[in-house]
Amino acid sequence: MPGAPSGLSPAPTAIRLTGVPASAGYAKGPLFGLAAAASRYERKASPADDADALRSAIAAASEKLAELAAQSTGEAAEMLEFQLAMLADDSLSDPALAAIENGAAADEAWSAALAAEIEGYEAADDEYFRARSADLRDIRQQVLDALTASGAAEAPAGAILVGDDIAPTRFLATDWSKGGGIALAAGSSASHVAMLARSRGVPMVVGLGPLPTHFEGVALLDAEHGNILLGDAGNEADLFRANAGAFAARRRQAEDYLYRPAATADGTPVRVQVNIAGPADVETIDIATCDGVGLMRTEFLFGKAAGLPDEETQYRAYARVLEWAAGKPVTIRTVDAGGDKPVPGFTVEESNPFLGLRGIRLSLANPEIFRLQIRALLRAAVHGALKVMLPMVAVPEEYERALALFREEADALGAAGVPHSMPPLGIMVEVPSVAIAPELFSRAAFFSIGSNDLTQYVMAAARDNASVAALNSVANPAVLRLIAGVAGFGRDHAIPVSLCGDAGGDPAAIPHLLRAGLRDLSVVPAQLALAKAAIADVAV
Amino acid sequence: MPGAPSGLSPAPTAIRLTGVPASAGYAKGPLFGLAAAASRYERKASPADDADALRSAIAAASEKLAELAAQSTGEAAEMLEFQLAMLADDSLSDPALAAIENGAAADEAWSAALAAEIEGYEAADDEYFRARSADLRDIRQQVLDALTASGAAEAPAGAILVGDDIAPTRFLATDWSKGGGIALAAGSSASHVAMLARSRGVPMVVGLGPLPTHFEGVALLDAEHGNILLGDAGNEADLFRANAGAFAARRRQAEDYLYRPAATADGTPVRVQVNIAGPADVETIDIATCDGVGLMRTEFLFGKAAGLPDEETQYRAYARVLEWAAGKPVTIRTVDAGGDKPVPGFTVEESNPFLGLRGIRLSLANPEIFRLQIRALLRAAVHGALKVMLPMVAVPEEYERALALFREEADALGAAGVPHSMPPLGIMVEVPSVAIAPELFSRAAFFSIGSNDLTQYVMAAARDNASVAALNSVANPAVLRLIAGVAGFGRDHAIPVSLCGDAGGDPAAIPHLLRAGLRDLSVVPAQLALAKAAIADVAV
Repeated sequence: MPGAPSGLSPAPTAIRLTGVPASAGYAKGPLFGLAAAASRYERKASPADDADALRSAIAAASEKLAELAAQSTGEAAEMLEFQLAMLADDSLSDPALAAIENGAAADEAWSAALAAEIEGYEAADDEYFRARSADLRDIRQQVLDALTASGAAEAPAGAILVGDDIAPTRFLATDWSKGGGIALAAGSSASHVAMLARSRGVPMVVGLGPLPTHFEGVALLDAEHGNILLGDAGNEADLFRANAGAFAARRRQAEDYLYRPAATADGTPVRVQVNIAGPADVETIDIATCDGVGLMRTEFLFGKAAGLPDEETQYRAYARVLEWAAGKPVTIRTVDAGGDKPVPGFTVEESNPFLGLRGIRLSLANPEIFRLQIRALLRAAVHGALKVMLPMVAVPEEYERALALFREEADALGAAGVPHSMPPLGIMVEVPSVAIAPELFSRAAFFSIGSNDLTQYVMAAARDNASVAALNSVANPAVLRLIAGVAGFGRDHAIPVSLCGDAGGDPAAIPHLLRAGLRDLSVVPAQLALAKAAIADVAV
Repeated sequence: MPGAPSGLSPAPTAIRLTGVPASAGYAKGPLFGLAAAASRYERKASPADDADALRSAIAAASEKLAELAAQSTGEAAEMLEFQLAMLADDSLSDPALAAIENGAAADEAWSAALAAEIEGYEAADDEYFRARSADLRDIRQQVLDALTASGAAEAPAGAILVGDDIAPTRFLATDWSKGGGIALAAGSSASHVAMLARSRGVPMVVGLGPLPTHFEGVALLDAEHGNILLGDAGNEADLFRANAGAFAARRRQAEDYLYRPAATADGTPVRVQVNIAGPADVETIDIATCDGVGLMRTEFLFGKAAGLPDEETQYRAYARVLEWAAGKPVTIRTVDAGGDKPVPGFTVEESNPFLGLRGIRLSLANPEIFRLQIRALLRAAVHGALKVMLPMVAVPEEYERALALFREEADALGAAGVPHSMPPLGIMVEVPSVAIAPELFSRAAFFSIGSNDLTQYVMAAARDNASVAALNSVANPAVLRLIAGVAGFGRDHAIPVSLCGDAGGDPAAIPHLLRAGLRDLSVVPAQLALAKAAIADVAV
């Protein structure tokens, strides 16, 4: 039967909807509609009472968010913190309270106030702000739920959640320990929720189109290929079971690799470290499963509502990760603000931020902010095997100027009797000029290839622009030639070379990287096992 | 005397103001204030009369602009056409006319309406739109001048125009044939006027700070070093005369080179072609002074108020330049919209347009628009030695897809009996992937290195961002290594290689480019003589 993904056809009563896989895996279970009928808000006796109702609802929603945040780490925790900060911001609630005073009902007033804000974010040029509009829609719903005391009913264990889209908080509040999955009519595989689903292994398919709202019985969600089968599956059920079994076996096999040192099929050892976005990330990682931290970002410290971080806050964050690493190396990158990571009060607005004042350029342009981070790093260095790397270096002078600042601050700490240590200072290799002429940077203690940025510059294709996504490939021969050149230069001159871009954890890219001569990859924790399994498949 | 630019000191009654050179040269003459006292607008008897006065003033300003446009070519003509289109746009005058009906005076109403518009353009993220705000300020003033019948008085021949800034139309309306110059308190060397001044050889200094408004006597403007001397110059006058004489001699010497074929100091011939922005540019170039057109842009055809250009309009523009070239090669680049050249109805808004859907990517994404341009090029090819090049090629597939479209359209024209010819199809080398792996593009008929874009990608530093300007250097070893690699590959495989970025006409960059192996440069017409003179100084 043409168009069917297998030689077998579903029974005539079944329908198969095809979408896009957002998080691979299989789930079998009842459907559960996400759009639970909302109760209506009952207006209170006076505007003052309506205003109180809104304030209570905001407080209740904040309390729920705080509970979720307490159980979350990494990007999820960051997102929840952003939502909490938004809810605490009077500039969001003030227009609603003013409208209530003028006679509006609490639910209408809140919806209207948020609608204006959401529109502003959606119209923003910047991807970052556009993405924030999803967070605003999320908190709008949470407060409305609290106002009407409706809220979404809890899904039965193992259910497949269906709807147009799913809010990140809804995902976080769901218990996935008994299985289940997500099937969305719309949605995006690049959304926050899709990212969370992948990191937790929750099967998810997006773009399925209109879904039946009333469906009894068990559905088969195939999020490896991107479809869902509703109704009497007939022969298809066997195929589904076999596919799901094979998938689970591959996953388990990968997990087997987790605690073993990585090596290629012919026994060449490969170091595999992890990329982390902040200290909270390490709570869920066993240090025994990796060779250290190849990239610890420090942007989490910047861009908070409270302003730029002080030295003590930074010192504690760095020291915490170094202590967790128990002697394994931890490579901390100085702040890489700018580009797609704007920080109010630090970064500037630019028409091409990826080609602008970002990374080391911004730090050198703001030495007073940079010196704070340097002092915190020097002090933290006594707690473990710290390495520090500089992002976006393009010319040797930038390395020399940063090194001079590290030395000045080390001297000052020494003079003041403050315990500190000078870490090896390396650079990211992400600006093509460095990869083309690495010999100009041989004073750097190590190189870490940032394959995401390197690729986008070599291909002149922004990594967050879907219309040029086909060009943005680390497997392009020019990109691989530069990577091989840097790896070879490092080998010949005893400068350690690692790679910390997304390609390091991508099973499709790993053979290319190993053949280019890399023996040191740093990957996101969720990809650690799969990366080790992929390495074991490659003969170099 | 510390700080003085020579060993001589000015007489005690003189003052020297130091600024930034925007267009090199020397001028000696009386000062003439640009901010002529404007007459006051006399309110008319009724709102209807006020409205008529505004309409007449807009018509008068439009007439003046049209006169200027008729005498202008190239970018100046384009700018004037934009201003004319703005003046003809009701959405600019309607708010002013509405305000007049509500009792506002014509001058206030027009100023207020334009102020709102100017603010919008100034707040734009895009450099292109920000630059347009200068045009809007210009037309605001022109209509106000027409309203008050004041207008700027004509400057005496040879005067040095002083003021905060100077409007482009003011520059164009001035007779520079008797000498003279421009000294601005503010201004920018990157402005439209500065560009015009350089192309016409009018000395101009910007950023001088507050200038005396009442100054009698003769001033000495040194726009080679960037200063102006007011008052009794004393011994300085001799030095000024000597410097001005030496400068003029160098200019004349360069002009001597204009009609000679270019060659290095050791006699190696170098081809020097010109870059043009449209057919109007060729009116002021003698084809005998150059080896052809190395880059004819086609963006001038796009982004008009009238919409995208039809095949016939394109065909006529291309044929006109081919006929002017009298058999010398003319290299036309298919439209390079996007990046910093947005075209309404064609390009898309992006957070990093330099890394987005631009050049060949945009053309391939809009084949119906691309096919029109291809047909016009194929038909024009019978009028001369046409070569066609594709901008922003990153992968070989883009070249193959474009080539297939050229062949399809050639076949269709052949079948319809339309005269046409298949030109050699080459590519721009500006995306680093091409420069790193040129062997993947050996099917291209020729390579033309776009040094502006290549440099900004290799250095990850946008070419229109002042805060990373220091990094954006074609003389960076990595950039020169790529250029040398492409030149060498072309030599070894008999693929012609030229360079058509700004570096080709920059005397400081020319030695680097020739040493990298290039023997074919394309420069803006204003730099033709100087480029040939600079080539003659280099031994390779």
